[in-house]
Amino acid sequence: MTVTPEQQAEIEELRSHPHQTLRVVSEGMEKHLYTAIPVLDHGFVRVIDYMGDDAAICQAARVSYGKGTKSVQNDEGLIRYLMRHWHSTPFEMCEVKLHVKLPVFVARQWIRHRTANVNEYSARYSILDREFYMPAPDQINAQSVVNNQGRGDLLSPEDTARVLEMLKGDAARCYDHYQTMIDEDGIGLARELARMNLPANIYTQWYWKVDLHNLLHFLRLRADAHAQFEIRVYADAICKVVADWVPFAYRAFEDYRMGAVTMSSQMMDCLRRMLSGETVTAETSGMSAREWREFQQVLEG
Amino acid sequence: MTVTPEQQAEIEELRSHPHQTLRVVSEGMEKHLYTAIPVLDHGFVRVIDYMGDDAAICQAARVSYGKGTKSVQNDEGLIRYLMRHWHSTPFEMCEVKLHVKLPVFVARQWIRHRTANVNEYSARYSILDREFYMPAPDQINAQSVVNNQGRGDLLSPEDTARVLEMLKGDAARCYDHYQTMIDEDGIGLARELARMNLPANIYTQWYWKVDLHNLLHFLRLRADAHAQFEIRVYADAICKVVADWVPFAYRAFEDYRMGAVTMSSQMMDCLRRMLSGETVTAETSGMSAREWREFQQVLEG
Amino acid sequence: MTVTPEQQAEIEELRSHPHQTLRVVSEGMEKHLYTAIPVLDHGFVRVIDYMGDDAAICQAARVSYGKGTKSVQNDEGLIRYLMRHWHSTPFEMCEVKLHVKLPVFVARQWIRHRTANVNEYSARYSILDREFYMPAPDQINAQSVVNNQGRGDLLSPEDTARVLEMLKGDAARCYDHYQTMIDEDGIGLARELARMNLPANIYTQWYWKVDLHNLLHFLRLRADAHAQFEIRVYADAICKVVADWVPFAYRAFEDYRMGAVTMSSQMMDCLRRMLSGETVTAETSGMSAREWREFQQVLEG
Amino acid sequence: MTVTPEQQAEIEELRSHPHQTLRVVSEGMEKHLYTAIPVLDHGFVRVIDYMGDDAAICQAARVSYGKGTKSVQNDEGLIRYLMRHWHSTPFEMCEVKLHVKLPVFVARQWIRHRTANVNEYSARYSILDREFYMPAPDQINAQSVVNNQGRGDLLSPEDTARVLEMLKGDAARCYDHYQTMIDEDGIGLARELARMNLPANIYTQWYWKVDLHNLLHFLRLRADAHAQFEIRVYADAICKVVADWVPFAYRAFEDYRMGAVTMSSQMMDCLRRMLSGETVTAETSGMSAREWREFQQVLEG
Repeated sequence: MTVTPEQQAEIEELRSHPHQTLRVVSEGMEKHLYTAIPVLDHGFVRVIDYMGDDAAICQAARVSYGKGTKSVQNDEGLIRYLMRHWHSTPFEMCEVKLHVKLPVFVARQWIRHRTANVNEYSARYSILDREFYMPAPDQINAQSVVNNQGRGDLLSPEDTARVLEMLKGDAARCYDHYQTMIDEDGIGLARELARMNLPANIYTQWYWKVDLHNLLHFLRLRADAHAQFEIRVYADAICKVVADWVPFAYRAFEDYRMGAVTMSSQMMDCLRRMLSGETVTAETSGMSAREWREFQQVLEG
Repeated sequence: MTVTPEQQAEIEELRSHPHQTLRVVSEGMEKHLYTAIPVLDHGFVRVIDYMGDDAAICQAARVSYGKGTKSVQNDEGLIRYLMRHWHSTPFEMCEVKLHVKLPVFVARQWIRHRTANVNEYSARYSILDREFYMPAPDQINAQSVVNNQGRGDLLSPEDTARVLEMLKGDAARCYDHYQTMIDEDGIGLARELARMNLPANIYTQWYWKVDLHNLLHFLRLRADAHAQFEIRVYADAICKVVADWVPFAYRAFEDYRMGAVTMSSQMMDCLRRMLSGETVTAETSGMSAREWREFQQVLEG
Repeated sequence: MTVTPEQQAEIEELRSHPHQTLRVVSEGMEKHLYTAIPVLDHGFVRVIDYMGDDAAICQAARVSYGKGTKSVQNDEGLIRYLMRHWHSTPFEMCEVKLHVKLPVFVARQWIRHRTANVNEYSARYSILDREFYMPAPDQINAQSVVNNQGRGDLLSPEDTARVLEMLKGDAARCYDHYQTMIDEDGIGLARELARMNLPANIYTQWYWKVDLHNLLHFLRLRADAHAQFEIRVYADAICKVVADWVPFAYRAFEDYRMGAVTMSSQMMDCLRRMLSGETVTAETSGMSAREWREFQQVLEG
Repeated sequence: MTVTPEQQAEIEELRSHPHQTLRVVSEGMEKHLYTAIPVLDHGFVRVIDYMGDDAAICQAARVSYGKGTKSVQNDEGLIRYLMRHWHSTPFEMCEVKLHVKLPVFVARQWIRHRTANVNEYSARYSILDREFYMPAPDQINAQSVVNNQGRGDLLSPEDTARVLEMLKGDAARCYDHYQTMIDEDGIGLARELARMNLPANIYTQWYWKVDLHNLLHFLRLRADAHAQFEIRVYADAICKVVADWVPFAYRAFEDYRMGAVTMSSQMMDCLRRMLSGETVTAETSGMSAREWREFQQVLEG
């Protein structure tokens, strides 16, 4: 991660001025504010602001004047009930604003989540830094042979080296040319044009603001084992932040979303037969081969 | 407005416990937190939480590490520029959460603004209070004869009295029957059914959370002279809150939205001809009669 | 249902003029166009327009030039795969526009689904008809004693009669007064004011347009056994329409959403223990009493 | 534009099979269906499907059973009224689905419009074609000296040649390496990794579905003179399609949006003084220097 001394000074400056507020405060979140959590080789996640805590979820669910709760225990029970029964609106009452630095190809996946607010660093207006994502050798895999959009085995050390050489060389050359093109004392090409020469592993950054319900939806999809590694590590970093911010909601999310399994009507049918002692096979299951395989994996855990 | 002593005690309790936070604080907003701003006869608006201030708009626009600004003066200039040129995303970086008590027919207009988060008091689960909106005599108007969806002159005192008598009598009777139907020691009808007997002037309440950009859009439409009076008073109350919360953004909103005028291409054409000394009439304007009338009104201000 | 002869003539007129189009056509949907499917005592659902069919889902998923498919069988497999793995965007590529007539208290639940387009009949501009929902006697239940927001046993015939008498009497009186207030030759009160006297069982109507993904989400929640009966019958009617429109997508929806069960991580843990022969009880399950009860219900089916 | 003979055959196949439908048909749109409108050097816009026409806007605004209109003239008047008074929901009742091929850096701007449905060609799953956007020489400009995010004068022929040489060389080399990395008989790198080496001028494609209101908002911003040329040409192409699809709505859009001017309260104040004969200068205008300049430009037209 690249945080310059100037940037570090700005972070420390921001953390050195506590204010008084009458709003609810999440102590677990205050400790994260402004600090840069490193992700990948040059990326980070920074919490810039937040609204609400576990109690605020309950307060909104009850539409109450005051804190709307009698005990902390009641709050956890209510939150688990809301999560289990897909009551999403109380979770929308918490909000978080993040500053994220991430490779462009990750940003392109991320932005597909539309229910969020975004301000991205503008390459029409500003000059991008010379920072490219280079995968660590243990993340350079072959195309999967079982999953058409995933990774399989690691490459050989030789192929890994060749890949990195190509990635590094191309990034360097493209960035050199980018600089040459925009040089105000040279060609002086418009920035909005010059940026088209930059590969998708260059880093960009944005402010991203989202409510807790939509954030958890994002995390369910992007912290999942099937998500691409490079976005998953961002989701994993954010999961830790959310666990500190709204611990009850996060635990309910783990139990009823991340660690939960959706059983189709065919799977439920098989399950009931198995629990009553019947031996069910792929043939007698009524599922396609692919679904049966997924069912077996789920039962093994 | 009906705030019971218990509710008032809850509000005072909430205002008596300042916390420390590292987040940005808007002093203008802190003074509003939790207090109930009266609207109509039993309604209110309460600020429950907020995120961001004028500086946060600039910080997001600049995607910066620190406060992202050199001077307060620069901030106002940037905010005005963003507003003038329809850059909406930086304004989405502020968020506010309100607790609102309002008549159901107002709630039905309000909810049409979809880009917000809502938790409404549930009449399936809970019992609604006996509180109905009764318009003040100076708000009881005849149907407009020029605007198909607005109000015209005041009614005569006699007709006003008749209207209020009907509204009050029907509200009382409907609520009496509602109570009779749900009485657990009597009929015990399901609440989700009994509520269908309640007229649209009964009060409901909700938590409503929205970002500043979408809030300003709501205010532009609902604080407008053509909005129905009963929702406009809520918009007016919220305008005052926003002016205290983000004064630069609010002033820009007044200048470039509320006080601004959209001139059609035909209007611009007429305007240029008029400025060059030509006398333009309805006949030579190229506008429909209705547009010409609207143009004249706009020029008079 | 109240469709006047004039309205029926308009429906028949619309159905009597087939046009030529190069767009994809769903034969199953053509037969529904414009006809009024009755719901409740005066309500209906009418299909006004639609876009796409099962093949269009696949075409978008493949981002292809042509139909993007080799065989109908492949299409169904792909659709089931997309549904099972929560790929929602291809389902967003189908759209439907409905004309719905429904009681106001149902409309208030319905509108909470924000990802749709709505044009509602305006009671500021127009006069509402004298049509109120009166529940059938077999839908007049007591408040549930196990579920705080549901219905329990049927009322006694006497109490049912009392409820209907109150509902009918209040609706009639409120509507009479509404008419008296807006009478242009009498009081002439503004319509936007007079409507506040109308109870929540009066019928309204709207045009509602939504994409298939969001429609299925709506149906999952509103065709569910826990939804209020009066909205569930609308959802049920729409389910039948969708089954005719996109039969592959609908069947996948039934298997992976409506008939599916979400097992929490605790439930999965118990399940694995049970399948390996262990006897798991409420005490040894690690679940709360409520969750254990829900788990038992799910296993029984 | 690159449409292969196979693709052209698919387009012709699709256009050769008219179907019967009871839905409303826009003759102006039927002629566009499936054909590829060329944009930039390899891009295109294709209309895949549409819903509604001018009459459908009026029908929804009136929430009517039938066509909801007495005359075509009434329809145009109503549409103009709706547009002028910012009634957006009736325009949401029309929908269009486009297949677009566009450079990645254009796609990144485009996707910021969140109120649309998108299915993009997946570079995790599939292999991108060797097609890169190369600006025509008359579109290779220097950074603007008056606008921080725009283009200024054309470059010299020498600098233009140098820019194109760099762009072409880097695109070719990056793509060669991309191919080498993913070669299944060679390195066999996962596609989701290899794509990070591709510059932002490579072409991608997607299905994009949007309602008319949000499409017009997109066009207002992207067909504007301040939009980057490379997205503006797509917006211009779509404008022509919309003009054929919903001619009344499009004309109203031109008059009240594209050709319209928003006058701030300060501008309106100056205007009224000028029309009453006063000579207003920058100094006496009450505007900042920048706003005054914008005001002058607007008056000149």
